[in-house]
Amino acid sequence: MGKQNLTLLTDFYELTMMQGYFKNNTNDTVIFDAFYRTNPSGSGYAIAAGLDQVIDYIKNLHFNEEDIDYLRSLNIFEEDFLAYLSDFKFTGSIYAMEEGTVVFPMEPLVKVIAPIMEAQLIETALLNIINHQSLIATKASRVAYAAGDDGVMEFGLRRAQGPDAGTLGARAAVIGGCIGTSNVLCAKEFDVPALGTHAHSWIMSFEDELTAFRKYAELYPNNATLLVDTYDTLRSGVPNAIKVFDELKGAGKMPKKYGIRLDSGDLAYLSKKARKMLDNAGYPDAIICASSDLDEYLIDSLKTQGAAITSWGVGTNLITSKDCPAFGGVYKLAAIKKDGVFIPKIKLSENEWKITNPGNKTVYRVYEKENGKLKADLIALVGEKFSEENPLLLFDPISTWKKTYLEAGDYTLRELLVPVFIDGKCVYESPKVMDIRSYCQKELSTLWDETRRLVNPHRVYVDLSNELWHLKNQLLDNYNTRSHSHK
Amino acid sequence: MGKQNLTLLTDFYELTMMQGYFKNNTNDTVIFDAFYRTNPSGSGYAIAAGLDQVIDYIKNLHFNEEDIDYLRSLNIFEEDFLAYLSDFKFTGSIYAMEEGTVVFPMEPLVKVIAPIMEAQLIETALLNIINHQSLIATKASRVAYAAGDDGVMEFGLRRAQGPDAGTLGARAAVIGGCIGTSNVLCAKEFDVPALGTHAHSWIMSFEDELTAFRKYAELYPNNATLLVDTYDTLRSGVPNAIKVFDELKGAGKMPKKYGIRLDSGDLAYLSKKARKMLDNAGYPDAIICASSDLDEYLIDSLKTQGAAITSWGVGTNLITSKDCPAFGGVYKLAAIKKDGVFIPKIKLSENEWKITNPGNKTVYRVYEKENGKLKADLIALVGEKFSEENPLLLFDPISTWKKTYLEAGDYTLRELLVPVFIDGKCVYESPKVMDIRSYCQKELSTLWDETRRLVNPHRVYVDLSNELWHLKNQLLDNYNTRSHSHK
Repeated sequence: MGKQNLTLLTDFYELTMMQGYFKNNTNDTVIFDAFYRTNPSGSGYAIAAGLDQVIDYIKNLHFNEEDIDYLRSLNIFEEDFLAYLSDFKFTGSIYAMEEGTVVFPMEPLVKVIAPIMEAQLIETALLNIINHQSLIATKASRVAYAAGDDGVMEFGLRRAQGPDAGTLGARAAVIGGCIGTSNVLCAKEFDVPALGTHAHSWIMSFEDELTAFRKYAELYPNNATLLVDTYDTLRSGVPNAIKVFDELKGAGKMPKKYGIRLDSGDLAYLSKKARKMLDNAGYPDAIICASSDLDEYLIDSLKTQGAAITSWGVGTNLITSKDCPAFGGVYKLAAIKKDGVFIPKIKLSENEWKITNPGNKTVYRVYEKENGKLKADLIALVGEKFSEENPLLLFDPISTWKKTYLEAGDYTLRELLVPVFIDGKCVYESPKVMDIRSYCQKELSTLWDETRRLVNPHRVYVDLSNELWHLKNQLLDNYNTRSHSHK
Repeated sequence: MGKQNLTLLTDFYELTMMQGYFKNNTNDTVIFDAFYRTNPSGSGYAIAAGLDQVIDYIKNLHFNEEDIDYLRSLNIFEEDFLAYLSDFKFTGSIYAMEEGTVVFPMEPLVKVIAPIMEAQLIETALLNIINHQSLIATKASRVAYAAGDDGVMEFGLRRAQGPDAGTLGARAAVIGGCIGTSNVLCAKEFDVPALGTHAHSWIMSFEDELTAFRKYAELYPNNATLLVDTYDTLRSGVPNAIKVFDELKGAGKMPKKYGIRLDSGDLAYLSKKARKMLDNAGYPDAIICASSDLDEYLIDSLKTQGAAITSWGVGTNLITSKDCPAFGGVYKLAAIKKDGVFIPKIKLSENEWKITNPGNKTVYRVYEKENGKLKADLIALVGEKFSEENPLLLFDPISTWKKTYLEAGDYTLRELLVPVFIDGKCVYESPKVMDIRSYCQKELSTLWDETRRLVNPHRVYVDLSNELWHLKNQLLDNYNTRSHSHK
């Protein structure tokens, strides 16, 4: 992974625009922000993910001979531009939210400062990677929230949207809270636990279920989790599993980890019945794992119904984020440098919330000092000074009369964008995935349960600094004046 | 693409089961069928896709030293099994529906005949690839159906679920009916048209819209499709585009292909207004392209509203198949060879339609001779003889009283599964993607409009041969008897 040449993983118009800038001799340094407008799946937050693959992509950016030959064959790119591409490398700077960070709409997850030709080229792949992994990490955090203290295993590879979606999706799922994945390639590449035991075909390949269970338990003395629904869960599967556990116990070979997996039927009913059968047989610590078209809502409902399940395998609905399979991240021009100064740019829209935030920005997270909980995020202009020694006035950027006044000493601040590339050089090393997962758990613990709940969560405010708010309104005023004068 | 080592792209349990078979000295030849149970997106059919990538995957299957070292590090695989993996290659046979074929629930899209250890290993990647591409090809065929004679361009890379989902998804979208893609990597790898012009950032990087349009038209004299919604579509964008067209015409440099692209707002209203403005200015052949969160339903509705759009760019909803982001393909054991004879196997379920079809099967497509339209599909056992010289009696496998009698001469037959690998050797060469696309168009033309319509389509029957039906019922009877005797 990450070693594949993804340089042409871009929209064709990025290249036609690049040649446009090249021919026009305009390669001003610009600022692009990657941000999103709505949390996926009705969530109260999202989880940033994918940065490590963006870094790999940027580091490996180069047009090889085959790429150049292909572009030449299209008869639309001229030789001087192709020569420029042959020598292309990324020379700009990138700031980003670290992977596993809890994020909210409208704040830059990634900020690119680069000559416009470079900034334009990387738009598509950067969005593709960040959108995908942030989507799955967010979904996984919801599923894990529903499962509470139980482990959630990512089982979706066969239904993922292609190989990368399976492997990078599983990576993101672990970041968001899964304890591991069935995907061996992901487990190897990213050093996360590989999980799973056997399928129905294992059972069916033996003369009978009991023999299949017996053989499996014999071969894997450390983990006898037996799939019990191939023929008849309660009349055949569970009794046969108990028979095997009895045999193991009798032989003094009881595995540390053992239990059953349910993969079909009414999981609430079956798990409660199976629990009783296992308990009566003397196996109160047998795990009951379930894996049948689960998602956060179904897990939540099963918990409410008192299902006796303590381990969850989640496939399709997680790996595709089925109820919301796209994270709407966009990449918008925020400023252009002219004569050494960034001129802020704004993209208008009839929808107020679709208007972009102009200028060179950064993001501060405001915490309540007494409990460490997240109070609000504050988008500000780079260079603005904030100090925890001073009080802080927050106000809603649209309904500006909604104000929150924080006394000095009542809050703490943290800047969220960290430098990743400076002038083309990578200055950031990604943590290991399991460490990102731990960081993400900490991040999630700064949210109130009201924001984490699955349905109708409490909204976290993302406010603009006074200076940024004034800049934005000034640009809007200018535009309206100009627009009227054009009539 | 396809050169990446995807050998570990498998579920962990495939490897634990493999070691189980290895240790148990059972490596019987088995038959697995990959099939699906429900058409995605409420469609009346699906389009098979992904076979070429499955072929690449199978050809490249090998555990390299790094893979073996990784597996060893898990302390669950023994050295004799790891030695076996080091020498692993696929030695089995694979039969499949060709890419672009119209397919229906329950019929094998891929049939694998191989030693069980090999057949088990490839399950996950095979499903991943076929599920993903068949999903997107099906969705694309629906979008293209809604667009009628207009071209549909695949524009979804930035919202796809990772790099492969973007590139292989775009490949599948072209197979299903798109005329090309914005994804340059896909265009290069699969020799399909790369499409696109410029983005809002191009417009915003110039002092004003008119200059941006002018520069673009000057640089690309063959295709002046101008994005008109950056500031104000009807008051600024379209008038400026017309100004540029006037200038080009005045200079005798009118491009062959020119027009406008709408990317926001009410597309019905704006396209009709813009059409009138363009017509009045003398540009009746200016293209109006639209690209704003489109899908098959929205395109259909815009057509009904009389929108003056003749070219469609479809992104997120197509590349993720947003309303149904997973194709539920499964891979089920159908037979095990014992003493040289395939013993048919059946997987039971309380849902009748979830019960698998046993044995070594093939699929025939039955056409009405007079019009070439698809009449029904027939799943039969390999070795059964059918001849167009004889009448054919079809009956519904569940409601067996639903019968259709076809006279000899009234129908034609085509066998759908073709050999792809025989005893480990690839015997099939995939056509080029644009040729698969043409084949798919022909395939779709064999469907009645009643089956192609977007909502509540007419169901095409997939029947079982008399022999297969009897085999299935016999196995079900056997099982029930056995099950009762166990009580």
